[in-house]
Amino acid sequence: MQIARVCGTVVSTQKEPSLRGVKFLLVQLVDAAGQLTPKYEVVADGVGAGMDEWVLVARGSAARQVEGGEGRPIDAAAIAIIDTVSAENMRLYSKSDEDRLLLPNNARLPN
Amino acid sequence: MQIARVCGTVVSTQKEPSLRGVKFLLVQLVDAAGQLTPKYEVVADGVGAGMDEWVLVARGSAARQVEGGEGRPIDAAAIAIIDTVSAENMRLYSKSDEDRLLLPNNARLPN
Amino acid sequence: MQIARVCGTVVSTQKEPSLRGVKFLLVQLVDAAGQLTPKYEVVADGVGAGMDEWVLVARGSAARQVEGGEGRPIDAAAIAIIDTVSAENMRLYSKSDEDRLLLPNNARLPN
Amino acid sequence: MQIARVCGTVVSTQKEPSLRGVKFLLVQLVDAAGQLTPKYEVVADGVGAGMDEWVLVARGSAARQVEGGEGRPIDAAAIAIIDTVSAENMRLYSKSDEDRLLLPNNARLPN
Amino acid sequence: MQIARVCGTVVSTQKEPSLRGVKFLLVQLVDAAGQLTPKYEVVADGVGAGMDEWVLVARGSAARQVEGGEGRPIDAAAIAIIDTVSAENMRLYSKSDEDRLLLPNNARLPN
Repeated sequence: MQIARVCGTVVSTQKEPSLRGVKFLLVQLVDAAGQLTPKYEVVADGVGAGMDEWVLVARGSAARQVEGGEGRPIDAAAIAIIDTVSAENMRLYSKSDEDRLLLPNNARLPN
Repeated sequence: MQIARVCGTVVSTQKEPSLRGVKFLLVQLVDAAGQLTPKYEVVADGVGAGMDEWVLVARGSAARQVEGGEGRPIDAAAIAIIDTVSAENMRLYSKSDEDRLLLPNNARLPN
Repeated sequence: MQIARVCGTVVSTQKEPSLRGVKFLLVQLVDAAGQLTPKYEVVADGVGAGMDEWVLVARGSAARQVEGGEGRPIDAAAIAIIDTVSAENMRLYSKSDEDRLLLPNNARLPN
Repeated sequence: MQIARVCGTVVSTQKEPSLRGVKFLLVQLVDAAGQLTPKYEVVADGVGAGMDEWVLVARGSAARQVEGGEGRPIDAAAIAIIDTVSAENMRLYSKSDEDRLLLPNNARLPN
Repeated sequence: MQIARVCGTVVSTQKEPSLRGVKFLLVQLVDAAGQLTPKYEVVADGVGAGMDEWVLVARGSAARQVEGGEGRPIDAAAIAIIDTVSAENMRLYSKSDEDRLLLPNNARLPN
């Protein structure tokens, strides 16, 4: 699996009938140092991921093993919302830190 | 899935018998910034996509999950015509804008 | 699928029993501009392709969907001999042109 | 399969139900010269691998052939802890050497 | 499939139970000009390949189509020992030439 950050959405009306109800997220792949890369994937959302969250992306036939994924022509899915990534005994990413860091900005938006 | 723009067609008479009736589109992959790349894919058209339209491309065994795709030796398919792509809260692509922009050119062609 | 040109053959006597009778072609991948690239693939020939012909190559489990491919350990197959490739309303490749261009050379060989 | 070194972990609470109980390791791919590369994979741990150990990583549908992997949306798994890698008649890696080399450091940690 | 040269072995004691008895070869991928590249693959040996031999490597689910491969978490296998590779009507590789060239060296080893 690869680590990716949710950065957008893709909307389609005219599509394979079996894709009705599938939400497509645009996710940006993250490298081993926790940096965002220019690579992206459009994934079916299986976990209710929101903007800026980090997710685990499964590609290939694995994407059809998500709940309700069977028989759908999808080759990538967000299978988990990431809480923490630790490497070399250091915390590379923590969703709770992210939430705290983002709160001031989010709070500012509705005002 | 990857985002791609329909840019051409591939025609073949002598082929696997199960491929009769399959329309092959040449699509050009789009990067995360909405720019066309030199990478392409030949995809089976599952959604009636037209020239210049942006489509979602599924690769691998997912391509055989389209309607009537079972048992065909295809590894890539256009599974959806894209209406909009949004990233970082900005509109990266909109089919309706594209249609409006393209209308004058299209209108000129038959005259 | 990718577009490729048949440029050679691979022969093997000692192989998986299920591969008996499979012809292996060496094909060179073609880029989106119709230029040959240094990338190659060894494919099972499902369509009787000849030297210099352009073929559609399917990779992954799709390769086992060709006639008689089931149960064989192949991950790439030539699934169609290409007649024409058109991009941006221009003809990128035409097998009949190719045949005409190649005839003088081919004719010279046996003399 | 690729050779990789276990360098971290990924933790997720909100995930596909079928992923409960799956341990996700962050592994760093090793090149043919035995050097660590910047490429990584998040793999399901099928063999109880520990930090710094070298493992064999299987990707694609192979990852679901591990014990209990069936029906889970995983596309990569650690399938073996590597004892030795030999290339050109030289020992590229030996787990026992590694253990011996690491012992002094490990011994220092609890003190 | 890709062409590769057998250059080593990978040994593992602690592994998925279904992998017992599988021999893992380290193979170095060969490019279209017949040159060795820095890319490698660890493959299950399905054909009794020896050091320095060139083999055909199948990746993905194809690797599990070898005899006895079903249900094993392998994503790459050596499926054939290559006799000859011919490209552009030239012989790129011949196992019998290779054997002749290697004989003097091999003969020297036991002395």
